[in-house]
Amino acid sequence: MRLVSFRRTDGHLGCGAVVPGGVVDLSARLGVPSLRALFASGRLAEARRFDTPDLPMEGLRFAPLIPDPDKIICVGLNYRDHVAETGRTVTEKPALFARFAGSQVGHGEPMIRPRASTEFDYEGELAVVIGTGGRHIRATEALRYIAGYACYNEGSIRDWQRHTSQFLAGKTFAGTGAFGPWLVTADEIPDPSKLTLETRVNGQVVQRTTTDLMITPVPQLIEYISTILPLLPGDVIVSGTPGGVGAKRNPPLWLKPGDVTEVEISGMGVLRNPVEAES
Amino acid sequence: MRLVSFRRTDGHLGCGAVVPGGVVDLSARLGVPSLRALFASGRLAEARRFDTPDLPMEGLRFAPLIPDPDKIICVGLNYRDHVAETGRTVTEKPALFARFAGSQVGHGEPMIRPRASTEFDYEGELAVVIGTGGRHIRATEALRYIAGYACYNEGSIRDWQRHTSQFLAGKTFAGTGAFGPWLVTADEIPDPSKLTLETRVNGQVVQRTTTDLMITPVPQLIEYISTILPLLPGDVIVSGTPGGVGAKRNPPLWLKPGDVTEVEISGMGVLRNPVEAES
Repeated sequence: MRLVSFRRTDGHLGCGAVVPGGVVDLSARLGVPSLRALFASGRLAEARRFDTPDLPMEGLRFAPLIPDPDKIICVGLNYRDHVAETGRTVTEKPALFARFAGSQVGHGEPMIRPRASTEFDYEGELAVVIGTGGRHIRATEALRYIAGYACYNEGSIRDWQRHTSQFLAGKTFAGTGAFGPWLVTADEIPDPSKLTLETRVNGQVVQRTTTDLMITPVPQLIEYISTILPLLPGDVIVSGTPGGVGAKRNPPLWLKPGDVTEVEISGMGVLRNPVEAES
Repeated sequence: MRLVSFRRTDGHLGCGAVVPGGVVDLSARLGVPSLRALFASGRLAEARRFDTPDLPMEGLRFAPLIPDPDKIICVGLNYRDHVAETGRTVTEKPALFARFAGSQVGHGEPMIRPRASTEFDYEGELAVVIGTGGRHIRATEALRYIAGYACYNEGSIRDWQRHTSQFLAGKTFAGTGAFGPWLVTADEIPDPSKLTLETRVNGQVVQRTTTDLMITPVPQLIEYISTILPLLPGDVIVSGTPGGVGAKRNPPLWLKPGDVTEVEISGMGVLRNPVEAES
C-alpha cells in the first residue's frame, strides 16, 4: 500500500492511501489528522479496507510525507564511497545528526536554495518511517517496528555544514529536505537492504547505489538509536547518502534555481522537486 | 513573572504562573495546553492579570519547562574555558546540535543514567525560550523575540558523544536533559549577558561562569539560527556550558545514582535533580 500526505485547497494537511483511480482520504474516513497519528492509533490495517477514491491523484499537492515527526534522525557517512570522497574514515558507530521538521517539503514542491549560500547540494537517501514505538529494540526484531519506506533528498548547505564540526547548521535550512512522494508499507519491502537508489539532476544520474552497501544497515540503526531514547510512531530515520555528492565533484555541482532533482528507489517511485531561490 | 509546566495527578500536563501563595493554572484559565501554546497565542500579557492561586506550590510536580518544543537547539563549545579543556579550537561560528524533546525532565525529576554507559556528565547552561517567531532576525532586534530564560542541565553521555564526529548520540539519551524550574520572563532579564551560572554536584561547585563570557552571545545565536530556518514560539536555545565538566577532571567526575545536581543562574533560582539509574 502507498500512503501520502497532502495539502487541501484550504491549506490544511491530510493523509491518504493511493488506490486505483485516486486517493482515499484517510483523514476524513478515519479521523486521523496525519500518517503519524494513523500509525500511533494502530489503525493501519483499517486503512486497507477502502478501495473507492475520494480525491483524484492528478493535481494532488503533496506535503512532506511525515510533516510532523517527533524526530528526524539522519545518518552521515553510511556508504563507503561517500566516506571516501569526503576524506574521512569509517567509524564503528553511525554518525547521527538531526534535521527539524520545518526544513521539509513534499514531492513536487520546490527545494529552496537559501539567500545565505550558493553551495546547495543534493543527497539521495532511503527514509525509514517507524510504525510501532519502542526502546531497546534488537536488530533481529527491528524490521517489524517499521511502517514503511520512502525517498528522501537530504539537501545540504555545504559551507554552513563546514562552519564547525557539527553538521546541523547545514542540514536543516528551510525547504531543503524533500520527502516523498509516498510511503510504501513494509509488507511490500521485505528487505530494505535489497534496493537500488539513484539521484538525478536535470535527468543526469549523479548518485547510484544498492542499499546492501550501507555501513550500518537499517536494523542496526534502529537498535543503536533506540538504545538512546524511545522511537515513536512517525519517527523518520534518513539512512545516509552514497558517493557522488555535488560538493566533491570537480568542478562542484551546486543546485541552482531552475534545476530539477530526482531521487528514485526501486519499487518506491520517483521523488521529483524543482529548485527555487529563497524569496 | 515566573511560568511553570507541571504534571497533574492524572498525568496530564498543564502550565501556570507563580504568584504569592501558589500557582495560577493558566491551562484552565486561558485554555492553553502548554507554555508553547501560550506564547503562540500571543496571550502572555493576559497571564499577568491573575493573582489568585489555583494550586499550591508545595508538592507541584514540575514537567520539563517546554515539554513539546518544535526544536531544541544546543550550542557546543561556547565558552573559552570549556573549548580549552576539550582540546579543541574556537570556531568563528557557533557549533549547533539538536536534542529531542523526549530527552527532557523537569525540576525535581530524576536525571537518568542509562544502562548503556557510566560516563554520565553534567553541563549547566542558560536556556533561552523564544516567544515570538521569526526568520532572518537581526542580532540588534533579537532580544524582543525572547519569552524568557531558565536553567538547563544538558546531561551528556560522553562515550556515546565520542562515537563519531557528531555529538547527537551522546546528547539526547532519555531523561538526561533537565529544564526548569521555571521560566523568568524577559522583562525581568534586560541583558542575558549579565548573569552568573553555577553548577553543583552534591553541593560541590563544579562549574562557575558569567554569561558575558559566551563566545557567540544570545542575540548573535538568534541571528545565526534564524538565517537557517524560522524560529517558532516555544523553541529552545541551550546556549552552551562553561569549563569544569566531569569528563575533563582528573579523575573524571561521573554522575551516579544517588547524586544530586544543581544548576543556579542569578535571578532564576535553582534547578535541582537527583540522579537515578535507568530501570
